Parts: sequence; structure tokens; C-alpha cells
Amino acid sequence: MVILVLNCGSSSIKYQVIDMEAASSKVLAKGIVERIGLAEGDLVHKPVGKERFELRQPIPDHTTGIRLVLDALTDPAHGVIRSLDEVKAVGHRVAHGGEFFPESCLVTEEVKEKIRSLFEIAPLHNPANLEGVLSIEKVLPGVPQVTVFDTSFHQTIPAVNYMYALPHAYYDKYRVRKYGFHGTSHRYVARVGAELAGLDFLRSKIITCHIGNGASVTAVLDGKSFDTSMGFSPLDGLVMGTRCGQVDASAVTYIGEKEGMSYAELNDMMNKRSGVLGLTDLSSDMRDIDRAYDEGDPRAILARDMHYGRIKKFVGQYAAEMGGVDLIVFTGGVGENSEEMRESVCSGLEFMGVKFDPAANKGARGVDKLLSAPDSRVKVAMIATDEELMIATDTYNLVK
Amino acid sequence: MVILVLNCGSSSIKYQVIDMEAASSKVLAKGIVERIGLAEGDLVHKPVGKERFELRQPIPDHTTGIRLVLDALTDPAHGVIRSLDEVKAVGHRVAHGGEFFPESCLVTEEVKEKIRSLFEIAPLHNPANLEGVLSIEKVLPGVPQVTVFDTSFHQTIPAVNYMYALPHAYYDKYRVRKYGFHGTSHRYVARVGAELAGLDFLRSKIITCHIGNGASVTAVLDGKSFDTSMGFSPLDGLVMGTRCGQVDASAVTYIGEKEGMSYAELNDMMNKRSGVLGLTDLSSDMRDIDRAYDEGDPRAILARDMHYGRIKKFVGQYAAEMGGVDLIVFTGGVGENSEEMRESVCSGLEFMGVKFDPAANKGARGVDKLLSAPDSRVKVAMIATDEELMIATDTYNLVK
Repeated sequence: MVILVLNCGSSSIKYQVIDMEAASSKVLAKGIVERIGLAEGDLVHKPVGKERFELRQPIPDHTTGIRLVLDALTDPAHGVIRSLDEVKAVGHRVAHGGEFFPESCLVTEEVKEKIRSLFEIAPLHNPANLEGVLSIEKVLPGVPQVTVFDTSFHQTIPAVNYMYALPHAYYDKYRVRKYGFHGTSHRYVARVGAELAGLDFLRSKIITCHIGNGASVTAVLDGKSFDTSMGFSPLDGLVMGTRCGQVDASAVTYIGEKEGMSYAELNDMMNKRSGVLGLTDLSSDMRDIDRAYDEGDPRAILARDMHYGRIKKFVGQYAAEMGGVDLIVFTGGVGENSEEMRESVCSGLEFMGVKFDPAANKGARGVDKLLSAPDSRVKVAMIATDEELMIATDTYNLVK
Repeated sequence: MVILVLNCGSSSIKYQVIDMEAASSKVLAKGIVERIGLAEGDLVHKPVGKERFELRQPIPDHTTGIRLVLDALTDPAHGVIRSLDEVKAVGHRVAHGGEFFPESCLVTEEVKEKIRSLFEIAPLHNPANLEGVLSIEKVLPGVPQVTVFDTSFHQTIPAVNYMYALPHAYYDKYRVRKYGFHGTSHRYVARVGAELAGLDFLRSKIITCHIGNGASVTAVLDGKSFDTSMGFSPLDGLVMGTRCGQVDASAVTYIGEKEGMSYAELNDMMNKRSGVLGLTDLSSDMRDIDRAYDEGDPRAILARDMHYGRIKKFVGQYAAEMGGVDLIVFTGGVGENSEEMRESVCSGLEFMGVKFDPAANKGARGVDKLLSAPDSRVKVAMIATDEELMIATDTYNLVK
């Protein structure tokens, strides 16, 4: 069964085409549409086993972008299916499911209405995600659609961990609470990591570190998300590429007052001009920071130490709140590629049973691998995340 | 040598008179002046070994309040010294020393100027603290004064732990960073706790939990503060009586936007209407929360679980960042009195070597005591804090 997986941003569409019933390699094609709404848009289509195809033309809206994707998929030269009839379902990544969606679900009018009701607390993502759903209704009418929410996995977090100690009325009125994000990735790597480490997923204490340009750490207790570092929005928790993560809220209001900034300007500053970029004035990309670090740039050293240190703090606090940890998993762009980060986070954790294996860590990237010594009480693993496969799997299970 | 210790608030003066050269019981008297500037003010004076003395009259300013204290100290009936000549020095608690004061110091014109320059980031405390210094200059001219800062102990925290991942310019321009508070208490109980546990203070990993209406946790590494839960202001970190502690900063700007609140109103909400008070709409006093908890009040259960859980998270993260922990210390109003809090925080920490002794914990209050089993790798202690003694000691050492 061929499933189209879509991740629609405000000016982009990432896609994968996955055959869930194929014997081995399931991915038929992947690609991206960018610069939607600008003078010139781009499509880059990468069919597996065929030559890539690129296109530049105005792409005024998501519907046009999706039409171009479907054309590419069925093209005699670089296509991967014979006709659109082969696409049996579409799975969408949706950023925010609020308290409505503890699980992925088939799209109905009610589902669309609920996604719409969350525009206000997820203004950057949910409108574009819904736009993708509506576009598919136009170009592939009748094909079942499934929405997979970044927040769903975290809906099992207990109130003691999702509530803020603000006046309760703000939760009652506005549902201000911790939601958490990257749920699809945390869910995937926790499960795969448990299998690799020979643990029973449903009876284990797992800490998953999804470290990319956005980054979060999750405590997974007995198969369920128990706590996570992102909060009401994806701003909170770790030091990220451009996001500040945890900060004294009164420091932020102090800056707002002194600089005469509006709330919107403060949010912009915390989301887009902070993190390792704000600390270094150099780059939001950890590869650039690594280079500057190696050259001895003091700001880069500070930023990287803070970035790594913050991850370690979350590993420590989640171990404490679960009463221990059986497995620590690293994933995401940095998590899968940075030996230095993984070693730095795990060093000094011997007191809680971590015996990291630097030799196993060396050169580990791309392929799932255990990074702990054989006799380590706490296992450590690097797992390559695959959110698209998770979305396709959820879609398949709901549609078949 | 008799030392007067003052803790001046905006409308109150707490004081102790301590004889640093007495053989045993050093405190001669303690008391409080309240409602300064209101229609009627109060003085409650408690001389050791004599009857307490109370006075009600208008107390327009701090100078008048301090005169009343000095009168009480030398009164033939309820006084504790024969003449003011016996007061050889005055020690002041000062909330905020910024980056200027890594240690207590003798008051000079320059010191006063620096305290004044910090009014803007400590508007609730530093003006009143300086008012106390100026009043003493008037009523006890020539007597040396010492300022002891709540922030000094934390000036050893490394940049990796005191910087926020905000644009670096805000640190350069406004010195927005973590300062930490309760430093005098953390310093005192870490040292006394190490002694009780038989540890070398200068080569130990200690976590001190000062839990009162205000509350903070500090990581003390080799005798120095290495990290602490309060930040730029005393708002951050733990769930407190009326303060929210850690919160996603974007949740706060969201509330500000929705409610049309100014930065000052937001700060007021986060400082005075949040914490266990905000969660329960009941009380900021943990004793009231405990009662409601026992009656099964769901909001009180949530608030207490969050309060305890947040302490445990800091213990876990500080153990991780120090590479382990040798001693956990509880102090402060709640820390010295709540068996439930101490047991809740320490339970489940066996994985990091904590063996809590519930029998030792039972009924422990007021007297310093070890609460861990004899074979516990990590020691746990309850230590009664004594900030006034610390202030008197620093004053004595600088003046003698």
C-alpha cells in the first residue's frame, strides 16, 4: 500500500512516498517543495533508483505545490508509481494537537476544526499543516488522510509534569500547559532503542535526546512519555540553534521593559535570535560552532558547553524523576552525528550506572548502534530517527 | 564583640544582637520592627533570658525604627547591653551584589554606590538594604558596617551555568545572567552539613535545598557554588509560595498578550499570584497546603506534588552536572520541618546511591541530623540554617 507522507510548512512541503507492503526498502521517493508564494519556487524530487529531478517555477500556493509533487510521482521518466490511484492514503505531520489528540487519527470535519482551533497557540505550523490537508482534498478527493501530531506522544505526561505553577485560571481559560513536541521522533527512537538494547519497552525507563536545530529530551516511562523538555511552545528546554530554551521569565520581561519591545518582538528574539546563534553571533548550525570551538573561539566554547551541559541536566533530572534510567538514546541531526556531544553528555554519569564506550561512539553515524560498554547498567544508543516511517505506519494502521 | 545584624525590608527591620566572643549561647536578643511608614508601627523585641517587649507607635522611617531598636537594646529592664558603645559593628543582609561582590565587605562610599547601581535589578530589596546602612551612619556614627550579599556565594558559578542562551548583547548591556540568592544560607548549611557527614567540604559534591516560602537548590562543588536554581531574580527555579519558578517564557508572553498585561503586571502575577497559591487559590503557606492535601483536595495534591517534584528534578540535574553527589542537605522553614518533603525528594534516588532512613527522618526538626542510612553512599542531612550567625561571623572577621 503506497502512502504519501507530507510535512507542510508555511512556504515548503517535504514529502516521502512509502510502500508499506514492500518486502524491503520501503521508500520510493522523497523530495521538497520550497519558496511557495515567492516569485520563483523550487521542487527537488529524488526517486529511489532513478535520477533526481528539479524544477523552478512560480508556486503560488500549497495546492499548486502538491500538484507538482503528484506530477513528479507519476512522470514516466522520474516517477515511482504508474497512476495516482496507487496512492491509498496521505499522512500529515501536524505540529500541535493540543489536548484533543492523544493519538494519530483519520481526518474528519471535526478533526480539521480542532486543528483550526489551535492556530492561536501554534501560529507558525498548524495553518500550514491544515493547508496541506485541504490541498489534498482538492487534488486527491476521496483519498483517506491521517494526521499525526508532534504532541500526541506527550499527552500521557501527568499533570505534575505538564502544569506550570502559574495561576490555575490561565490553564482553565487558555490551556496554558506543557505540550511537548518531537513526539513522533521520541516515540520511534525509544521503541527502536529498547529493542536494540534488549529491553522490554513497556517496562523500561528511557531517556531520548532528539538533538537537531530544534532539540528536546523526553523521559519515557514504561512505554509512555512521562516528561519532556519543550513546553507550551517549542521554545523551552535545551539551548537550540536559535531558541533560548530555559530562561528566568523575569529576565525576559526585564529585557522587554528596557528595550521597549512588544510581546511579539520578545518572542521573535527568543525564537529566532537566541540559542547558539545569539550567544556567538556566528551561526545557528552546530557544525559551524564546532569549527569555531576547535579554533578556540571563546563564544563558541561557551555556546557549545551550554548546549551540551543543558542536555546533561535534563538526563539527570529525568533519571531522578523516573527513579533511574535503563537506556539513553541520542537521535536527530546532531544526536546522530556528533561524537563530541554524545561523549560529553554521558561523561561523569558513572555515578548513575552509565559506562560509555568511547570506541563504539567513534565514527558512529547513520546506523543504529549501542554506545555503552557491555557491562554498563545503563545502556546508551544512537538511533537514526525516521518520523516519516512513523507517520506512514500510523497512516497504514488507521487506513488498512 | 557585640555585633548588630540587620535585615532591612521596605517596611520592616529584622535584627539580632550577637556576641561573637561569648563562650556559648551567642545570641543576646532578636526582634522585628514592622509596618514602617504606616499609621501605626510595631516593635517586638525578644531579649534572651528576659521578658519580651512590645511597642506600638508610628514609625515613619528606618532611622526611627533603628533608634527604637537601639533604645530597646540598652533599656534597663529589657535591654541586653549597658551602652551603645558595646556595639562594635553592624552587619547587613543585602539582597543583590550583582557581579561586584564575590565576598562580604566593609561599607565604603564606593560600596554604597554599587549597591545603589543595582536598585534597578533588585528594586524590592536593595533600596531598603541601603536605607539600613544610611540609618546606622546617622544613629551610630563611626561604627564599622559590613554588607553580606545573598548573591556573593554564587559568584563562583561558571559562565556555562550562569549565562542564558539569549543574545549576548543583553548580558553586555544589562548584565542579564543568573545571580542566584539565599547564598548565605547555602554557604552555611553546606559547610555545617559536610562537617556533620564527616566530609571534606573543599573536596565534596553537595546539594543544598533551602526550602521555605522562597526556595532554591544549590550545587556546591569543592566548597564553591557551581549552580543554583534561582536566576536573574528570585523568581526562577522551584515552585514557591507565590512564585512560579521555571516556566516556558513563551507561555508568559502568551498570557501577557491575551490578558493585555504590562511587563510590570506580568512580574507581579509571576511573583505574587503564582506558585502553590496560584495553583490552589488557597494559600502560599505549605502548612495550609499540607492540611488540604491530607483532606484530599486535588489542587493541593497537584501543588504539593509539583513542589516536591521540582526539588527532586534539581537534585537530579545537579548530581549529573557535578558527576555525582556526596551529600544532600535540607534547610529552611519547610526543609527543617517537613518530613514528607524530605522523604518524597529522596525516595527513588537509590539508583544514584541514596539510602534514606525514614526512621531518622521521623520527627527530625530543629536539630542538625543525618537522615541517611549508615551505609548510604550519599549522605542526607537536615541542617537548621542560621543566616544571622553567618552575617555576624563575616562581620566579625572583617572588623576584628
